[in-house]
Amino acid sequence: MRFALDVMGGDHAPHEILKGAFMSLDLLAPDDELVLVGDEQAITQDMKDNGIDDARLSIVASSDDIRMDDPPIDSVRAKPNSSIVKMARMAGRKAENPVDIIISAGNTGACVSAAQMHLRRLPGVHRPGIAVCLPTFGGPVVICDIGANPDPKAHHLWQYGIMAAAYCREMFGVENPTIAQLNIGGEEMKGTDIVRGAREYFQQTEGVNYIGYIEGREMFDHVADVVVTDGFVGNVVIKLSEGLASGIFKSISHEIGKQSADLVDAFKPVIKSIYARHDYHEQGGAPLLGVNGTCIICHGSSEAYTISSAIRNSRILVKNKLNEGIVSRLATVNQQVGAG
Amino acid sequence: MRFALDVMGGDHAPHEILKGAFMSLDLLAPDDELVLVGDEQAITQDMKDNGIDDARLSIVASSDDIRMDDPPIDSVRAKPNSSIVKMARMAGRKAENPVDIIISAGNTGACVSAAQMHLRRLPGVHRPGIAVCLPTFGGPVVICDIGANPDPKAHHLWQYGIMAAAYCREMFGVENPTIAQLNIGGEEMKGTDIVRGAREYFQQTEGVNYIGYIEGREMFDHVADVVVTDGFVGNVVIKLSEGLASGIFKSISHEIGKQSADLVDAFKPVIKSIYARHDYHEQGGAPLLGVNGTCIICHGSSEAYTISSAIRNSRILVKNKLNEGIVSRLATVNQQVGAG
Repeated sequence: MRFALDVMGGDHAPHEILKGAFMSLDLLAPDDELVLVGDEQAITQDMKDNGIDDARLSIVASSDDIRMDDPPIDSVRAKPNSSIVKMARMAGRKAENPVDIIISAGNTGACVSAAQMHLRRLPGVHRPGIAVCLPTFGGPVVICDIGANPDPKAHHLWQYGIMAAAYCREMFGVENPTIAQLNIGGEEMKGTDIVRGAREYFQQTEGVNYIGYIEGREMFDHVADVVVTDGFVGNVVIKLSEGLASGIFKSISHEIGKQSADLVDAFKPVIKSIYARHDYHEQGGAPLLGVNGTCIICHGSSEAYTISSAIRNSRILVKNKLNEGIVSRLATVNQQVGAG
Repeated sequence: MRFALDVMGGDHAPHEILKGAFMSLDLLAPDDELVLVGDEQAITQDMKDNGIDDARLSIVASSDDIRMDDPPIDSVRAKPNSSIVKMARMAGRKAENPVDIIISAGNTGACVSAAQMHLRRLPGVHRPGIAVCLPTFGGPVVICDIGANPDPKAHHLWQYGIMAAAYCREMFGVENPTIAQLNIGGEEMKGTDIVRGAREYFQQTEGVNYIGYIEGREMFDHVADVVVTDGFVGNVVIKLSEGLASGIFKSISHEIGKQSADLVDAFKPVIKSIYARHDYHEQGGAPLLGVNGTCIICHGSSEAYTISSAIRNSRILVKNKLNEGIVSRLATVNQQVGAG
């Protein structure tokens, strides 16, 4: 299997990203290849500093950077020599010997744009969507989309459910994942035309384990294996959850500190144990479902462990032929709902 | 001042709602009146049981109930003798001696529908929106809309900002509240056409303290006094926050219980102190901004204290002439952006 890793993307690039790449060498097969895309000098130096000499590693030099706050589409067009664009091109249809998997913790919008431009869509897919695994109190919940498509149509939402269910099956081994739509109430008439339209598509789809609407307060209760929403709401959901959880723990630590130093020490293993069970680094990254290839988008604050997890987990998706599964499933269900 | 209270709405109706009404008697002025709308027998019995005999209380009997999961618009039409509809009618344009304030912890959609139907809109208002105060880590943040209008236009969002800023000023004494829009990134081109359209309206508005976009992770950091979003996203935000916060505290309690019983006891005051600072019961309810009257929508799980807080705080809004402020401000700014 061949990977291309954007070494320049993320808050801790390039060192943490490279450290993750070096960590992942133990997880890779003897015939895997890992291409490091980025500043050649920095990569060579880090390899030397870490005593890394592995024939499976190679370097593709980039000479430009897309920053985290650059406008996605414009920067992908304007910076063909950036690590993101070079990486995406290596998995693209015009590449001579395309890589199987691309991974970046850089500008999410730019990754999505570059991947759509170079990988194109899988047959039958209307719009790609990012699926992320939320480590909820009841186990992993896959939410799709979290930002690729902030203003989707009803049939896009519906396809996110179909694709995310396939992902949930291949990644977490859930045989027939339950699918819910995030809405502002449980009743049929609640929400927008688009949400209600997607519901109709789900109801017309045979063999789909659709359970209807859930509300925000059920998001972390594992009511469904897959939660479908638009990229705007999905993006707010994951960022809000992150900010609120971090704020609550900070608030507790502050309050405990006021009570006693002993309590601070006693509370540390509690926090540690909760963090361990709800650690997004474990999952590594979020696949951009629907593109013709495997594109993994990692959190901007990814650490070495996040990157090595992304490499490990993306291998599973390719090995289990996730994309073949999506194409074959869509060929059937697109016909059922008349959304060819 | 005259209040009508829906005694039948909410998970703990009618007893907790009535208890709240009785608690509020100490807060009311000698010439205030509080009309209890609901099951006459239950009200009379509770008054008797609590030894309540106050000339400021009166009863309007309802003979039907709108349940929490009834379809809002249909049930308002089909159940004219429900407590929600009777209450709304008492504040309506056709009422002989209209009450100043209506308060309900019942079906939110039905309250919004009934209030729009009977109170109508203030001059210059395009669509009413529900503004709720989130007790964040940095102080109160007003978020509008949280569910009255799941699919707004750009000028609706913009007016939510103008109205919520007026509410923030009258309720919390913030002189020139900062206004932000919730979006999926800070950059100008991020989000949907509707979000970007509202941004343009804000930028054309003189004297507005608009600070641009914020992301979900900043929601609880008090980056702005007012956060504008559509009723779909706003609804997900408040319900998700409630579910996640409660889940985290449950998770911590569970984990602490596994460590030691002493730790459980030591942790109780920590939780208590955090809850006290972030208690939504303190705020009482959320005003439906933009209707010609004062309509306060309380949380479905309202307790007596929530109801008495709603009565206390709604008094402030009427006393400070919030609606007159909104009308006069909109008369100016609607002209500035050409949204008369």
